[in-house]
Amino acid sequence: MSTNLKINLDRLTDRLAQLAKAGALAGGGVSRLALTDSDKDGRDLVVQWMQQSGLTIRIDQIGNVVGIRPGKFNIAPVMIGSHIDTVTVGGAYDGCLGVLAGLEIIDTLNDANIYTDAPLAVAFFTNEEGSRFAPDMMGSLCFIGDLSVEEALNTRGIYNSTVRDALKRIRYDGKAPCGSFDVQAFFELHIEQGPRLELENKTIGVVEAVQGISWTEITLNGDSIHAGTYPMSLRRDASYVQGCITRRVREIAEEIGIRQVATVGRIDYHPGLINVVPQKVTMTVDMRNPDNDELELAEKLLHEFINEACLKEGIDYTTKQLARFLPTEFDKNMVSLVEQKAQQLGHSTLRMYSPAGHDAQILQRICPTAMIFIPCENGISHNVKENVKPEHIEAGANVLLNVVMEAATAGETSNWKAEALIA
Amino acid sequence: MSTNLKINLDRLTDRLAQLAKAGALAGGGVSRLALTDSDKDGRDLVVQWMQQSGLTIRIDQIGNVVGIRPGKFNIAPVMIGSHIDTVTVGGAYDGCLGVLAGLEIIDTLNDANIYTDAPLAVAFFTNEEGSRFAPDMMGSLCFIGDLSVEEALNTRGIYNSTVRDALKRIRYDGKAPCGSFDVQAFFELHIEQGPRLELENKTIGVVEAVQGISWTEITLNGDSIHAGTYPMSLRRDASYVQGCITRRVREIAEEIGIRQVATVGRIDYHPGLINVVPQKVTMTVDMRNPDNDELELAEKLLHEFINEACLKEGIDYTTKQLARFLPTEFDKNMVSLVEQKAQQLGHSTLRMYSPAGHDAQILQRICPTAMIFIPCENGISHNVKENVKPEHIEAGANVLLNVVMEAATAGETSNWKAEALIA
Repeated sequence: MSTNLKINLDRLTDRLAQLAKAGALAGGGVSRLALTDSDKDGRDLVVQWMQQSGLTIRIDQIGNVVGIRPGKFNIAPVMIGSHIDTVTVGGAYDGCLGVLAGLEIIDTLNDANIYTDAPLAVAFFTNEEGSRFAPDMMGSLCFIGDLSVEEALNTRGIYNSTVRDALKRIRYDGKAPCGSFDVQAFFELHIEQGPRLELENKTIGVVEAVQGISWTEITLNGDSIHAGTYPMSLRRDASYVQGCITRRVREIAEEIGIRQVATVGRIDYHPGLINVVPQKVTMTVDMRNPDNDELELAEKLLHEFINEACLKEGIDYTTKQLARFLPTEFDKNMVSLVEQKAQQLGHSTLRMYSPAGHDAQILQRICPTAMIFIPCENGISHNVKENVKPEHIEAGANVLLNVVMEAATAGETSNWKAEALIA
Repeated sequence: MSTNLKINLDRLTDRLAQLAKAGALAGGGVSRLALTDSDKDGRDLVVQWMQQSGLTIRIDQIGNVVGIRPGKFNIAPVMIGSHIDTVTVGGAYDGCLGVLAGLEIIDTLNDANIYTDAPLAVAFFTNEEGSRFAPDMMGSLCFIGDLSVEEALNTRGIYNSTVRDALKRIRYDGKAPCGSFDVQAFFELHIEQGPRLELENKTIGVVEAVQGISWTEITLNGDSIHAGTYPMSLRRDASYVQGCITRRVREIAEEIGIRQVATVGRIDYHPGLINVVPQKVTMTVDMRNPDNDELELAEKLLHEFINEACLKEGIDYTTKQLARFLPTEFDKNMVSLVEQKAQQLGHSTLRMYSPAGHDAQILQRICPTAMIFIPCENGISHNVKENVKPEHIEAGANVLLNVVMEAATAGETSNWKAEALIA
């Protein structure tokens, strides 16, 4: 059975619109890179709303923010969360929907004066996108203790500052320790960021798994020489090798098959002048696949090609793994719970995998976890054109509400440690 | 017959070393991009030396500096010149040798109290490299009146300022008009910037021609989407097309043959993030060939490929010609004069074409012109490793001295206009 409670769509969409003003771009879209001024504006707003909803705020050493609502029992909370950082040019829903839907559930329960057995927690994690600092999902990785806080704080990103300095600058360098927070279950509502739900005309995506992610940075060291004077046959040209690798990346994806995607998103030429063969080229390759064997094959083919192309051109190279996530399967019971609640509410459902990485895949390592997807227009995200229908937001948030209420019904008590909660 | 006069090698190499301190890089090499603070430092130093050598200074509207020494007759001067701007990371000789050898000839004549029939002029031209502002050879193009001063001053380069603002900032926005200065003959001594003289063990390159230059900027407009979520088959990926074009540029050069060179030196991805398929990619292609038919074929093949690749991927593109110079043949009499004087001085010579662009090719449009090349180590320039043997500097400067003295012997008077010379 599902509850008769319904979330307040107007309140939720209004907050989504307000949050989208932090870092809003003139031509539409949002730019709220992790730990920038815009991110601080967004964080301050969400923290203020959390406080207005009566949540106790906990900020940890990597800047993750958790708002906690007590339950009837002092056990580990059921957590709802996502992130509010965006890529350089993103939209209003990616991440924010999961956080603000969590807050909406708190307010819906507040309005009805209902307390769940387990406490509830709403979280937003630092630097999920990874657009500023690698790896992505940095905050959730630290949260569960799988990435050392020290290593993360020392990471240098674009704009050339470290996570430590950036956190201090916006005053989100919290004191709460990472890796010490027990969670009973974790749920994340998110836009699909792909076209499947829309193409198949389904409302709720029941996410069974997240594809694996492999990020590689390649540095090619050639000879920097005058573009006009040196015969082609004598050149050791890093730009040529970059071109060959970029072209090969597409071929590799096609060879491996439909589940493989691969992207060259960032390239730097040094010195980067029209009339100088570059001395150094740095490029990144983002490869993803729900099947780890296929992803490993893609990595192998990429490295083979880099080696071969550099050998042929006579240039040196280095590669660095910036991030590597295994494909993640979500908890079967929680996945079924999502499907069951969605169907009880009368929504069409589709079991699917997530092509993007999410904080939920990290939380799955420490607690039963599931994700709920809703369609986004034309499958587009990380773009000013990112858009979502209000009825899909409402459907997704109500499924989340029902799922959370059931998960927060205490079966047996867990060993939730009542640690000091630091504002 | 050649003169018994000899230039003073120590004075010349000392000045080269002093000038190399303006914009010197910690690890060696020089960074003196046009109209930067370093360029100002270099300019101030050379102007000071010119004044010490008794030259009258003329600064024109585009910042070209000409130092003039009177002759026995009030006719058009014989000019010696080059440039002192460098690429982002360059060496001490490219350009500077031609300017300071000119100054050395003035001082050699001053020391011997010899006056030539025609006045002599030593010039350095603004923004020859074109690394900061396009086109390259901007100063000499304005000097002869083939590029409008207004258009050149409005050009915006890297660091996002215009030539006008940059000139004003370093106070080289002179008053002397462009396109009004008569020149009897022009000579430029330069390092080869390629390996031929060294490989063939020759001291003096007798430059018969300069290869043609074609600079194209390509802008590719794809779809900016999440790197993980969108199937490869639905992508319109500007990075993939960039890779294909960069690879094809090499193929085109190889198909056309040994005289064709082609370089992709600058690339910008927007937004340039690991996990976002870029929306916009801008890249440049520098193509050069001494044969204009071959160069036109290279351009045709490039444009055909861009069109084909963009059509196939379904992306829009624009191309912009940033510079186009026809191959230039130098004056046959002046070329013979260089060869004759070099051989009279006992140097081995090689008739060759210049693979790089030079101010001399622009001056050839208004007066008989020739270039003298000397070897540089391993043919390397535009690089911290740029190096030249002192004996080659001495040989080149003495050939230049002899050539200039003969060219400045008045045959008939020309219509040299005694215009106001403005310091």
